Amino acid sequence: MPSRNAPGRSRKSRNAARVLSEDLVVGIDLGATKVVSGLVASDGTIVRHSGYQLHANDGPEGVMEALVRSARALIGIDPGAPLSAVGIAVAAQVDPGRGIVVHAPNLGWRNVPLAERVSEQLRAPVTIVNDARAATMAEWRHGAGTGVDDLFCLSLGTGVGGSAVVGGRILEGGTHALGEVGHITVAAGGRKCHCPNSGCFEAYVGGWAIAERAREACGADPAAGRTLLSLAGNLPSITARTVFEADRAGDPLAVRIVEETERYLADGVVSVVNAFNPSVLVLGGGLVTGHPRFLSVAEGAIRSRCQPPAARALVRPAHFGEDAAVVGAAEFARSRTR
Amino acid sequence: MPSRNAPGRSRKSRNAARVLSEDLVVGIDLGATKVVSGLVASDGTIVRHSGYQLHANDGPEGVMEALVRSARALIGIDPGAPLSAVGIAVAAQVDPGRGIVVHAPNLGWRNVPLAERVSEQLRAPVTIVNDARAATMAEWRHGAGTGVDDLFCLSLGTGVGGSAVVGGRILEGGTHALGEVGHITVAAGGRKCHCPNSGCFEAYVGGWAIAERAREACGADPAAGRTLLSLAGNLPSITARTVFEADRAGDPLAVRIVEETERYLADGVVSVVNAFNPSVLVLGGGLVTGHPRFLSVAEGAIRSRCQPPAARALVRPAHFGEDAAVVGAAEFARSRTR
Repeated sequence: MPSRNAPGRSRKSRNAARVLSEDLVVGIDLGATKVVSGLVASDGTIVRHSGYQLHANDGPEGVMEALVRSARALIGIDPGAPLSAVGIAVAAQVDPGRGIVVHAPNLGWRNVPLAERVSEQLRAPVTIVNDARAATMAEWRHGAGTGVDDLFCLSLGTGVGGSAVVGGRILEGGTHALGEVGHITVAAGGRKCHCPNSGCFEAYVGGWAIAERAREACGADPAAGRTLLSLAGNLPSITARTVFEADRAGDPLAVRIVEETERYLADGVVSVVNAFNPSVLVLGGGLVTGHPRFLSVAEGAIRSRCQPPAARALVRPAHFGEDAAVVGAAEFARSRTR
Repeated sequence: MPSRNAPGRSRKSRNAARVLSEDLVVGIDLGATKVVSGLVASDGTIVRHSGYQLHANDGPEGVMEALVRSARALIGIDPGAPLSAVGIAVAAQVDPGRGIVVHAPNLGWRNVPLAERVSEQLRAPVTIVNDARAATMAEWRHGAGTGVDDLFCLSLGTGVGGSAVVGGRILEGGTHALGEVGHITVAAGGRKCHCPNSGCFEAYVGGWAIAERAREACGADPAAGRTLLSLAGNLPSITARTVFEADRAGDPLAVRIVEETERYLADGVVSVVNAFNPSVLVLGGGLVTGHPRFLSVAEGAIRSRCQPPAARALVRPAHFGEDAAVVGAAEFARSRTR
């Protein structure tokens, strides 16, 4: 997060000056278990944070109450501050044009008119957007993708997802689901995915899949994965994180699983870059932090295996971490009210 | 092509009326071996055709001369006709904004300022565009993709290629190469493609790959492919077309190759639809004509294997055949001068 590392004046006085002088927008990241809000300046800096936990049985009303409370906690300190807009990023299928959360499996929502409801309570224009698109907006405007019109953000975490900017616009798709590249087939007839398809990119490279593949391999040959097993404690506790740790410690089984994962990553990255032809491919998510070599693997695959016009795509690590959706949601709200 | 099948008045008198009354645009399809031009009305109907063969050693000058001759042959019959614009579709990497053919491997061109040169000679505004995008424009405006804002056109011929309309715009990509879905990896570690990648969609489903796979299988087991071999004459003469013919005749080897191809087609189509989330997937090219069952295979795969929001995509056969690029090039020129 830029504000944390900014040099010069102390963050406190700089931020106070911002609150009084700048056009501030609230960005909210509505996840499955918590709401995080930030007061975001036009340069993408978060000048103030607030967060609330959600409860499994909150329902739309309870969640909206938490959203409103979270936003008010930010602006309450200075009721006169020019709160021009609110943006909400949701881990869901979202129709930004109509302001509706079409389907949020984690929240159990269908067709919730979130923008209108929150707007009534906060008395400010509210924009809602899918969280992957919000993160892409943050990278595009203030992060690793600044300065280009064609960008693909690939997120490698428990799941694998993506979002594209093409010709200077973030793409939505026919049902607001464009960019689900975790579910392109990379291994015909391959491993069953959590989705209805088999052989998916995510079914090899997603965090859950790396863990699953390592558990299977360890079950079959515990001796080869001795270090991995001792790091994890036991077979069911193996995660992608412990696999990366064991790989660094030279565990032969973990080394093999990571090498295989790198090969599948290369297959998927070549597919994404040939299909979307980005100038920059941004790689983010916990797996990239856990195993930074994925960046050079991606770059090598693009240079050596993509179609010549696509092979020029640059690979960059994501600039934003957990704050990406907050910053991007605010940026969406800003672009809507401009 | 609509004009060929249009009911009512005879084509001749209808077309003559058009030449006198309508705003006509010339669309040109510049291929590797020939130039085809058409005078295109605003409803996408070609009212007049002309074609010239190209020669291997024509060079840019010779090709441009053929282009200009071909366009003049169309308008010469009525020099007073309001020729408002010319569009040229090229089987190449094309920068439409700068009017430059960046790289045309078949023609051996690099950075040819085609639009400006032809414009000088024809004294009309000239727009150039990649041929796959031109075909997509034709389908979108006047063919199988009318009425939607999110469309993917997948062409299954000797090669496999595509082009996308998202949010009401045809996508170009960072180096004008977006949509190269023939080169997404569907079989990790699989067959070598003609491109630098392996396991590509095209390396299984492209016409050349179907033929290559059938030849290999026939070489290994000539008895199983007896009908296929007799239809083709000999092993090297096996093509995708003869494989489809032998499949219809019940040849066991051809049946197996076609079934395998259908499975890879399903893998690739699921990838494309999950990645691009089109409302309509248009399938065109010689393989769809040769084996129409590909349409229902694609539809079945989308319904049963895509992510739920993407699984609603409709599959439609391409409306245009060989004329697609001519009609689409004219439509591009029309949209530029509007």
